[in-house]
Amino acid sequence: MKNYLITGSSGFVSQHFLHYLNDACPGSHVIGIDVERSTVDIREFPNIRWDFARANMLDYAAIESIIEEFSPENIIHLASFSSVAYSWKRPVESFQNNTNIFLNLVEAVRKLAASCRILSIGSSEEYGNVDHTSLPITESQPLAPVSPYAAARISQELLSRIYCQGYGLDIVMTRSFNHIGPGQKDGFVIPSIVRQMVRIRRGTSASDEVVIGDGSIVRDFVDVRDVAEAYQLLLEKGDKGELYNVCSGRGLSIREIVTKLQNLMGIKVLLRTDENLLRPSDNRIIVGSNRKIRLKTGWEPRISLEQSLSDIIRDWEKRDHCVP
Amino acid sequence: MKNYLITGSSGFVSQHFLHYLNDACPGSHVIGIDVERSTVDIREFPNIRWDFARANMLDYAAIESIIEEFSPENIIHLASFSSVAYSWKRPVESFQNNTNIFLNLVEAVRKLAASCRILSIGSSEEYGNVDHTSLPITESQPLAPVSPYAAARISQELLSRIYCQGYGLDIVMTRSFNHIGPGQKDGFVIPSIVRQMVRIRRGTSASDEVVIGDGSIVRDFVDVRDVAEAYQLLLEKGDKGELYNVCSGRGLSIREIVTKLQNLMGIKVLLRTDENLLRPSDNRIIVGSNRKIRLKTGWEPRISLEQSLSDIIRDWEKRDHCVP
Repeated sequence: MKNYLITGSSGFVSQHFLHYLNDACPGSHVIGIDVERSTVDIREFPNIRWDFARANMLDYAAIESIIEEFSPENIIHLASFSSVAYSWKRPVESFQNNTNIFLNLVEAVRKLAASCRILSIGSSEEYGNVDHTSLPITESQPLAPVSPYAAARISQELLSRIYCQGYGLDIVMTRSFNHIGPGQKDGFVIPSIVRQMVRIRRGTSASDEVVIGDGSIVRDFVDVRDVAEAYQLLLEKGDKGELYNVCSGRGLSIREIVTKLQNLMGIKVLLRTDENLLRPSDNRIIVGSNRKIRLKTGWEPRISLEQSLSDIIRDWEKRDHCVP
Repeated sequence: MKNYLITGSSGFVSQHFLHYLNDACPGSHVIGIDVERSTVDIREFPNIRWDFARANMLDYAAIESIIEEFSPENIIHLASFSSVAYSWKRPVESFQNNTNIFLNLVEAVRKLAASCRILSIGSSEEYGNVDHTSLPITESQPLAPVSPYAAARISQELLSRIYCQGYGLDIVMTRSFNHIGPGQKDGFVIPSIVRQMVRIRRGTSASDEVVIGDGSIVRDFVDVRDVAEAYQLLLEKGDKGELYNVCSGRGLSIREIVTKLQNLMGIKVLLRTDENLLRPSDNRIIVGSNRKIRLKTGWEPRISLEQSLSDIIRDWEKRDHCVP
């Protein structure tokens, strides 16, 4: 029986991590921190003990007191403003709510000399534009960020290394690729597309057009439930100070995803590019190698892309029914 | 006649930059920002027009209103918590007062769509431990920071590139090596040593020991007056989005500096290592190549190390007389 501090506990990944703990690690004690109200329905997690502290992680004193009181063995730092698009609109807020909140977390652990392992989540966006000869991207690829969000994530990673090597904190790092799965907000590309397509199929959309940004960009989509398992395995088996890609190893363009969705849903849609959704600069192709995490932890993605997309469609059929 | 915004205007480099402007660019209009009271004596700078705004750069609104009102053509961002030692003790404050203040600056310029060139000052500390085969260090050397300060400076650099490439700001970057010269605070290594030696020579020291940290580390010391000229030349001639080492190209260990000081002062001292001055991890050798800035701007260091050290000795003889 272990205890976990989960930051950003009201978020998408946290929900799935709690499901994972509930099934795979019964008896776990979890305290969640989130700036938003808790969205956790404890009836869904009968096998874990759940506590919640509402706190803004920019408030250092709050973080320190929570860690002091709870003495977590594992900290999984999911709190993040993880939208690249948002980071272009509000770069300062994005930076603070990625880098500065992480700095507060590790500083509290350092000051308290708390004995715990921290999982620091990074992003495939850190790699930036990668030449096709460097695909799939390994962890040794030089970083070339092209968005404020990516810069913030690299800054977090730099701080992870300093706190690990300079102060001796036990930190394991990831660069996590695009997550998909039920429950994701529709500010992200796949849920946005699925939501529009669900409405088209239902006949509640004004047109049969699906509005997207750049349909040609290729991403490595990994199911959030596989991500949850990867995070637990890294907490258990990852090497201190090491960094691991968390990815499927498979790349698809946004257009290819739409084609798959059309097949799954039995409809045809038209794609329209909204110039407002194009970003000042964007990575063309991001596909990762998951060799390192597989060798170290035995992890591998279990959920097929078709399964992920089917679950997302079902999710939006349910959600969109409630919120017209 | 140009106008300049200087952040950190009460600091060491700013004083010398003002002297440079006063001599080389008469008629310049300068507004200084500093969190401390202004230390500028306008009688020293008869050829420039000087204004001052006391502001904490963590206060975004203050920065924005100053830039809006003043519309600077050049911004030279000297504000920094630049002590590596301090960054180990107070990593959060160090990070905020390096990275976050810079982010506020560029964000204000972006929001106002202000037309100006920004000089973003970085540090040789960003390079970290460099293998001797990579000396002297060029700008293409991979970065491997080993202190919170270095991580903060790299974060600033990442943000510079994003604001330059993503938002079109006109930013020129430096990685500046160790500055020396009259007026530097004695929290830094050379003034600390000189101050102790001045007291020994005067007979006001309790012993003839000079307390230092690691005497074997090698640094590239460049006179602050040469640095001031480099910054002006980079504002005039540097390429947008490019980064330039500002360094002498010559490395000396702390012990070698002490030997030179002994010769200049005609005394012999004993060195004692204070374990408290040793850092969790430190770069062994930092010596830079200044080829890029020389080729681009014609800059070269003019002041010999002996001249710098003599001026620092004279400065401490004067200052230490006043503050016993």
